[in-house]
Amino acid sequence: MGSPPSNFITTPESLDSKHFNHLNPEDLRTKAHKAVDFIADYYKNIESYPVGSQAQPGYLKNRLPKTPPDTPESLDTILKDVQNDLIPGITHWLSPNFYGYFPASVSSAAFIGEILCTGFNANGFKWVGSPAVTELEMVVMDWLGVMLKLPKSFMFSGSGGGVVHSTTSEAILSTIVAARDRVLNEIGIENIGKLVVYGSDQTHSTYNKACKIAGIHPCNIRSIPTSVKDEFALKPDSLRKVIEADVEEGRVPLFLCVTVGTTSTTAVDPVKDLAEVANKYNIWVHVDGAYGGNACICPEYRPFLDGIEMVDSLSLSPHKWLLCYAECCCLWVKNPNLIVNALGTNPEYLKNEHSESGSVVSYMDWQVGTSRRFRPLRLWFVLRSYGVANLQNHIRSDVQMAITFERLVKSDVRFEIVVPRRFSLVCFRLKQLNGFDSSYTESLNKKLLERVNSTGRVYLTHTVVAGIYMLRFVVGATLTEEGHVIKAWEVIKEMVNTIVNEF
Amino acid sequence: MGSPPSNFITTPESLDSKHFNHLNPEDLRTKAHKAVDFIADYYKNIESYPVGSQAQPGYLKNRLPKTPPDTPESLDTILKDVQNDLIPGITHWLSPNFYGYFPASVSSAAFIGEILCTGFNANGFKWVGSPAVTELEMVVMDWLGVMLKLPKSFMFSGSGGGVVHSTTSEAILSTIVAARDRVLNEIGIENIGKLVVYGSDQTHSTYNKACKIAGIHPCNIRSIPTSVKDEFALKPDSLRKVIEADVEEGRVPLFLCVTVGTTSTTAVDPVKDLAEVANKYNIWVHVDGAYGGNACICPEYRPFLDGIEMVDSLSLSPHKWLLCYAECCCLWVKNPNLIVNALGTNPEYLKNEHSESGSVVSYMDWQVGTSRRFRPLRLWFVLRSYGVANLQNHIRSDVQMAITFERLVKSDVRFEIVVPRRFSLVCFRLKQLNGFDSSYTESLNKKLLERVNSTGRVYLTHTVVAGIYMLRFVVGATLTEEGHVIKAWEVIKEMVNTIVNEF
Repeated sequence: MGSPPSNFITTPESLDSKHFNHLNPEDLRTKAHKAVDFIADYYKNIESYPVGSQAQPGYLKNRLPKTPPDTPESLDTILKDVQNDLIPGITHWLSPNFYGYFPASVSSAAFIGEILCTGFNANGFKWVGSPAVTELEMVVMDWLGVMLKLPKSFMFSGSGGGVVHSTTSEAILSTIVAARDRVLNEIGIENIGKLVVYGSDQTHSTYNKACKIAGIHPCNIRSIPTSVKDEFALKPDSLRKVIEADVEEGRVPLFLCVTVGTTSTTAVDPVKDLAEVANKYNIWVHVDGAYGGNACICPEYRPFLDGIEMVDSLSLSPHKWLLCYAECCCLWVKNPNLIVNALGTNPEYLKNEHSESGSVVSYMDWQVGTSRRFRPLRLWFVLRSYGVANLQNHIRSDVQMAITFERLVKSDVRFEIVVPRRFSLVCFRLKQLNGFDSSYTESLNKKLLERVNSTGRVYLTHTVVAGIYMLRFVVGATLTEEGHVIKAWEVIKEMVNTIVNEF
Repeated sequence: MGSPPSNFITTPESLDSKHFNHLNPEDLRTKAHKAVDFIADYYKNIESYPVGSQAQPGYLKNRLPKTPPDTPESLDTILKDVQNDLIPGITHWLSPNFYGYFPASVSSAAFIGEILCTGFNANGFKWVGSPAVTELEMVVMDWLGVMLKLPKSFMFSGSGGGVVHSTTSEAILSTIVAARDRVLNEIGIENIGKLVVYGSDQTHSTYNKACKIAGIHPCNIRSIPTSVKDEFALKPDSLRKVIEADVEEGRVPLFLCVTVGTTSTTAVDPVKDLAEVANKYNIWVHVDGAYGGNACICPEYRPFLDGIEMVDSLSLSPHKWLLCYAECCCLWVKNPNLIVNALGTNPEYLKNEHSESGSVVSYMDWQVGTSRRFRPLRLWFVLRSYGVANLQNHIRSDVQMAITFERLVKSDVRFEIVVPRRFSLVCFRLKQLNGFDSSYTESLNKKLLERVNSTGRVYLTHTVVAGIYMLRFVVGATLTEEGHVIKAWEVIKEMVNTIVNEF
């Protein structure tokens, strides 16, 4: 901002009548300290709010004006509205009593990283946009690759490389498009309708979406059934049969999504055995470890990635379990050129000597968008602030608390564990009682979930797998301690009692 | 985190030997204050750094270890490395002397909004994930719609609606997929190869990428030539001819991207006249106002959106010119159902009474990914903290400074303005001298750009349009004042003198 027109009206927000400056460093300092205190106090008091928002649809529309203000409002006024109008509409994902979906794991270190990322506002679309943005991302992706004991074929220090995306969806979309174009370059774009992609009926819904976006015909998206017996893992034999049928009918197998830790029940597909089947057909194999992949930094979970050298790409989301705040998804690929061939563009206004010489990575060619923030900063702060050993202990501690909860459930004859626990998710439900049908059991469990969440003291979510409605209890919110887990179980038992009395 | 195993080694970073807590509010408070001071000091001293990073490819790899640390490092250590290792690799987009690409505009208000967005870490994939996230986004999108005088057909208060995306790329991709599926539902998915999309040779490269991702055959992406004579705007007649040829040959016109403020020269395509042509063929018309659209909050620029009621969607990026920090792109659509039909999924584990009843917006069905941050907060803070009148003055002030620069260029006979200025971008170059060919002029201007940027005192970028290499000078960095612009011109003149002496 330069000098304002002379008829400019000064306000309490303009610090100086001569220079209306939206980024005065001292003004920013004062206000940002206030915002930091607001968040620190929010964390301190987070248990005083109902975990799940109790707001009704449309609650906010009626509280806010229909048009923006013409003149400035003070930070204090806005923060008061955040407290009074927004907080009642927030479900507190960071509450220690939040056990829904996959919880969001966060940390002071990532918070600092985010402040710096925002503050620099450096754009890493190409190396030249800010060399540090690109180079730190390369370093951090290799660091995490080392922690996961990935083969050199996925590392910049080897022949591959990695990138930080916002979400798994973008990671999967970019790999599908790379795989698609590799095949279409051979068989001709007019054959796009022949391409078939594979996953299980437990694969995340975003896979389906990404395939559709990429122009894969919806009728060619195979969702192969799994079963309780196999703990909802995709069987290599089932995959082979489906592929064979497609090949026989002249279709072209393209892509397989293998999941390490499915969203419903944290099922783990057998990477090595599935890759063996897929490799015979030259199928691009992607491993989606959005949640479960994070645990593989611990040696005891690393076997879930056995066979990883046989796949083409792997993604996992540190915002789910490595303390990173949303949105942070890491993708490694064996052959970055295939991604760049599919997503690369080279407009004149972004050309520069370094990118033209091919000596640097241009991350805009690895993603859907052009602009990109200083994405690796949060992860770099987390890895350095805690160190590998503490991060492994963090995973183990969450699992340990899930084991505690599992034991409590098992100790109560009214309940059952529906699927064996693998990580920090416990899938459980009120048992089907003799003489009652399954829909009664479902309604009982639904009622229990509603009742538990309406207390505001705990927040859980559900799923339905193989026709079974079950409750999901995932330990993962950063503030959760064992005492919270024990208290959550007390709330659940209390609510069971109120239901049983009613029915 | 719960209690660590008993053999856990305490470190300076663990505040308490019993509870290793990654989110202790007092620890976060202390550290975050330090980070805020780091950024406030960075802004204060930003002019002391070379604007464009002088780093060489690979500079960082050699400064950082190859593996992450096993044990914690202190915040002070990490911040020292940020200062010593990262800052030399950063091109300072927020420097008042940054005039490259489109600058990133930021503000104290957006910084506060981002701290809260990160702090809450609330996930708005569906309304139930955090009602305030969805509802504030709806309110803010309508507010900005009011500021742009959009017809009710684009507003939630009417029959349309808006969404905050990260980048224009995602906005365009989601609308192309919606348009594609609308047409394929009628003509059959096997006809995807017949779909044709339109833009000009000035349309942003991301349009091409988005079309390819969506499975549009690359040979069906029309890049219609523009000319200096028409100031690089797409001519409705040219569009009509290309469409007619496609229709004649049995192809199906699908999508048109109209740009208000192209990246190379801020050319403005005539929205109304182009929409008239496109509407005859039932083509989805998208207006990309990534940069120029922001100016349309001022009545004097609003005519650029005349005819907007005839298009299907509009996007613009407040991170470019409305003080919002990256990444913030607003998309309005007339028929949200078409987006949801194309991108919607409804997995069991995310079902809930409100989304099932259809009474609320599920933003995950408007985008590529599932997770979404509290995206509207930054924009809400900006609109409230400054008010509409000040935001209009902010746009005008940047334009005024560009006019100042334009005058300075015009006053020097060695230079010429290559394309008339529309907003705050000035496209200029050293004139072609009598007796010298155009490649000499190009090399002279290239040399000038290199020389100017290597001073570290100013940062500019270039483009080539209609074969003409030119320098781009965009006023837009928040800290820029008129004095900086005048100083930048001095630097440019100084460098011309050094070159002229050499050649």
